[in-house]
Amino acid sequence: MKDMLQSPTRRQLLSMIGKTAGATAMYQAMTTLGFASESSFKEEMELKGAPPGASIIILGAGLAGLTAAYELRKAGYSVKVLEYQNRGGGRSWTLNSGDKYTELGGEVVTCDFEEGNYLNGGPWRLPTHHYGVLHYCKKFGVAMEPFIQENSRAYLHRTDHFNGVPQRLGDVQTDIRGHVSELLSKAVNVGSLDRSVNKEDKEKLLEGLKGWGVLDKDYRYLSSQETSIYRGYDINPGGGLMPNAKPSKPIPLNALLQSGMWSDLSNFTVYDHHPTMFQPVGGMGKIGDAFTRECQEMITLNAKVTRIEQDDSGVTVSYVDSNEGSGVAKTERADWCICTIPLSVLTQLDINVSKSMKQAMAAVPYETSFKVGLEFKRRFWEEDEWIYGGVTYTDMPITQISYPSGGMFKDGSGVLLGGYGFGETSYKFNSLTPQERIDASLAYGKYIHPQYTKEFRSGTSVVWHRIPWTLGCYGIWSDSSREQYYDTLCSIDNRIVLAGEHCSHIPAWQEGAILSGLDTAKRLHKRAKLAV
Amino acid sequence: MKDMLQSPTRRQLLSMIGKTAGATAMYQAMTTLGFASESSFKEEMELKGAPPGASIIILGAGLAGLTAAYELRKAGYSVKVLEYQNRGGGRSWTLNSGDKYTELGGEVVTCDFEEGNYLNGGPWRLPTHHYGVLHYCKKFGVAMEPFIQENSRAYLHRTDHFNGVPQRLGDVQTDIRGHVSELLSKAVNVGSLDRSVNKEDKEKLLEGLKGWGVLDKDYRYLSSQETSIYRGYDINPGGGLMPNAKPSKPIPLNALLQSGMWSDLSNFTVYDHHPTMFQPVGGMGKIGDAFTRECQEMITLNAKVTRIEQDDSGVTVSYVDSNEGSGVAKTERADWCICTIPLSVLTQLDINVSKSMKQAMAAVPYETSFKVGLEFKRRFWEEDEWIYGGVTYTDMPITQISYPSGGMFKDGSGVLLGGYGFGETSYKFNSLTPQERIDASLAYGKYIHPQYTKEFRSGTSVVWHRIPWTLGCYGIWSDSSREQYYDTLCSIDNRIVLAGEHCSHIPAWQEGAILSGLDTAKRLHKRAKLAV
Repeated sequence: MKDMLQSPTRRQLLSMIGKTAGATAMYQAMTTLGFASESSFKEEMELKGAPPGASIIILGAGLAGLTAAYELRKAGYSVKVLEYQNRGGGRSWTLNSGDKYTELGGEVVTCDFEEGNYLNGGPWRLPTHHYGVLHYCKKFGVAMEPFIQENSRAYLHRTDHFNGVPQRLGDVQTDIRGHVSELLSKAVNVGSLDRSVNKEDKEKLLEGLKGWGVLDKDYRYLSSQETSIYRGYDINPGGGLMPNAKPSKPIPLNALLQSGMWSDLSNFTVYDHHPTMFQPVGGMGKIGDAFTRECQEMITLNAKVTRIEQDDSGVTVSYVDSNEGSGVAKTERADWCICTIPLSVLTQLDINVSKSMKQAMAAVPYETSFKVGLEFKRRFWEEDEWIYGGVTYTDMPITQISYPSGGMFKDGSGVLLGGYGFGETSYKFNSLTPQERIDASLAYGKYIHPQYTKEFRSGTSVVWHRIPWTLGCYGIWSDSSREQYYDTLCSIDNRIVLAGEHCSHIPAWQEGAILSGLDTAKRLHKRAKLAV
Repeated sequence: MKDMLQSPTRRQLLSMIGKTAGATAMYQAMTTLGFASESSFKEEMELKGAPPGASIIILGAGLAGLTAAYELRKAGYSVKVLEYQNRGGGRSWTLNSGDKYTELGGEVVTCDFEEGNYLNGGPWRLPTHHYGVLHYCKKFGVAMEPFIQENSRAYLHRTDHFNGVPQRLGDVQTDIRGHVSELLSKAVNVGSLDRSVNKEDKEKLLEGLKGWGVLDKDYRYLSSQETSIYRGYDINPGGGLMPNAKPSKPIPLNALLQSGMWSDLSNFTVYDHHPTMFQPVGGMGKIGDAFTRECQEMITLNAKVTRIEQDDSGVTVSYVDSNEGSGVAKTERADWCICTIPLSVLTQLDINVSKSMKQAMAAVPYETSFKVGLEFKRRFWEEDEWIYGGVTYTDMPITQISYPSGGMFKDGSGVLLGGYGFGETSYKFNSLTPQERIDASLAYGKYIHPQYTKEFRSGTSVVWHRIPWTLGCYGIWSDSSREQYYDTLCSIDNRIVLAGEHCSHIPAWQEGAILSGLDTAKRLHKRAKLAV
């Protein structure tokens, strides 16, 4: 507060600041507000003191394997990573212009997008609280941009409701709040909740509902200039003597309830989707690329593991090395092995672990999921409908349409996530050829965006149950399988330990893989030091 | 659907698509979904056919004046713009490193930020439905990036509640939904609303509330793994054998109601703040700069208007030209005049308009507002608290703290909007010296971010009532003043017509200025053609 002694307003200012009570409590309380208290990721591990000459072989160059490799090399281990594919990064994978891959069944999936356009085959968005991912992204120089999950101008769509006309997300959100507030105000005003809410709270509750729900003086949620300030107008306010603003009309509660759209709102309220979210500039694969670059000296690509055999002094991994054309059978031996191969694949390999570990490995089925990327000649969602980022949800099998959070306002082509679903709808898409998936996504999507027909340019897709190196999307855990098998699956089985999103409480997310890699590295290091 | 004839799954696919009813209604309905139906800005005007030799003088090179200038020049008019300041853009203004200005009272306000850091003195965020602004930004090549209004990790703060400890926005939002849903479920379950909700809707209402509010099987909103999926955890789920996730605890309804934080949520539900919002990369001033560049041949800077006199054949504007040091009195004459000078200034000038116009000009007081920008040595809000963008609201006089939406994850310094308020709190800041405003913002802000003390680097501010060229922030309209004076204020008074945000239904926003400029240009063009 220097430089204020001469000011006539100093007393006023100090008085203002003096009113700021609670100060004494603040500093201590603040320490609990940071991320440290809530996160499983505290800060980068600094493992030290690997036993001299100790070696570790890591199977799989996805994020779990490379996180462990990166940290254990720092600790002083001799680390080798075997990877089945011709690239690192695993499911942290972006399909770019010119990419192609062969899926189970022999079909070749191509990506013929224009340069710069892409589809994230796997993960595509990062919540802020995935501290592990964001930590390594910053450390490895992966540029980030906001990922727009919630866009009030995106749609909710139900085939059999509103004559199939998509409704604006913002309208549905505002109207649900309005109708709920009107109903609760009514119940409060007739005294129905007098047992639950005391008199003082009752007044504040009514005041809160009136503001939050945008209710009129009689606690009704109706079309008005006031409600339009929250839900938008049929004709927006203008300048000069432009036509008068015209209020919009709320969707009746009955129609909302019958449509089932309310349940879609959880896509915006779930913690993992809270703003601010992020995506790497240029696609999620930039993360896989960065880990691969940081670990490249340790990685052998094109190495198909066929057998994992441990004995009292180490682990021998047999694999087929395809780096020089036809495969050559090789072996690699190390003191310890971290295996991140998805359980869907691992359970088909020859591995000598304990019976209980084998049971745990067999107890985790893999979720099915599909994604279709559709490239259009122009970004009509922006140009015609002013939709910049965000996600539309529908009850059609495509399940959702996501608008790109990158490259907004650009001229020329752009890519929509034209379909992304799980379970039954995914099994249907799994059974289609690559071309049919695109055709189906177009056939559905045009009910939401009629521009599809005229503007389509090319498409690509990933159906995870046809991806040879995962045979599924991610491990599915139930409460009971967690109870029975999880600790065993994560335990160190003599000289072998598993890692990956399937060995985490955050399945399907990269954060789960990274935290699993960190935890595995830490525990294995401890065990290795004891074993000396 | 080509290439599908041979596929065994074709029938299945067609059957899936056939279920998509409502299709016939869609195409027609879609035409009402675009922006065209709701916006006052349809598309760029194409005014044509200015009377030969017709001239227009425009007073003020803000967005209203330059929009009119740009469009009327295209129509063929000879257009000149007089601007008081040494730059165009008006309130579309960014304070950059090295900038300084003199405010009423003679104090010089400096901006000593590091290169690249800035404070938007005026507007700072753009809703998607401000089509006029976005149209010209795209046309003039102003690069955009998302503006993050809502960040669940930002805070709500009440000095006298929760011991002064800020609460996470996402927690408050989730808990309000939970408590409201629990209360309404209770009322519905005891039959209090049976007259308002029929039986079928009642079941769907309960189902909806259970999902939206994250209620348990007994319709209670309680701490649990399930509610933590929506509001976050005390300890997040981890990988491997990391400590178990620990659910967070909802804030009791009573404490939320008493705190008054509920009312802050309107900052995130109001239509003007719906996602997706935008900001120009590098500051809002990029818009003013772009308009100035596009119109530069028409603009005379450093021209202080002293008198505006119309007669039957034109308008003569007297002004002081300070482009060559000491001022030189000059006049400029044109057939028509568009005056965008803020009413707070204009009412003090010599102008011969009708009595009713004079009354209208005098009927619009100007809102007071202040902004303080605080530069810190490091982005501690990101590094310590994982807050990337968004706004914290408090009942302290600083009113809010906004975290930058640009440059996220960068090392080094960054700038917070450390205070931004209106009305009473602004009058208090107006009475402080530039240094005191910074000191006061720091003194308050440290109750939310204790890092302020250690990390502060420099500050700057704008208090709009001390800005000589506006003498206030924007025009305030009441329902009754609109009724009585608005149409007159916007009317063409013989050969003079006013424009600006004060001549719009969107006061304070750039969109209001642009739409006013467009509407004025259109009406004046019509009048000018009739006058020939």
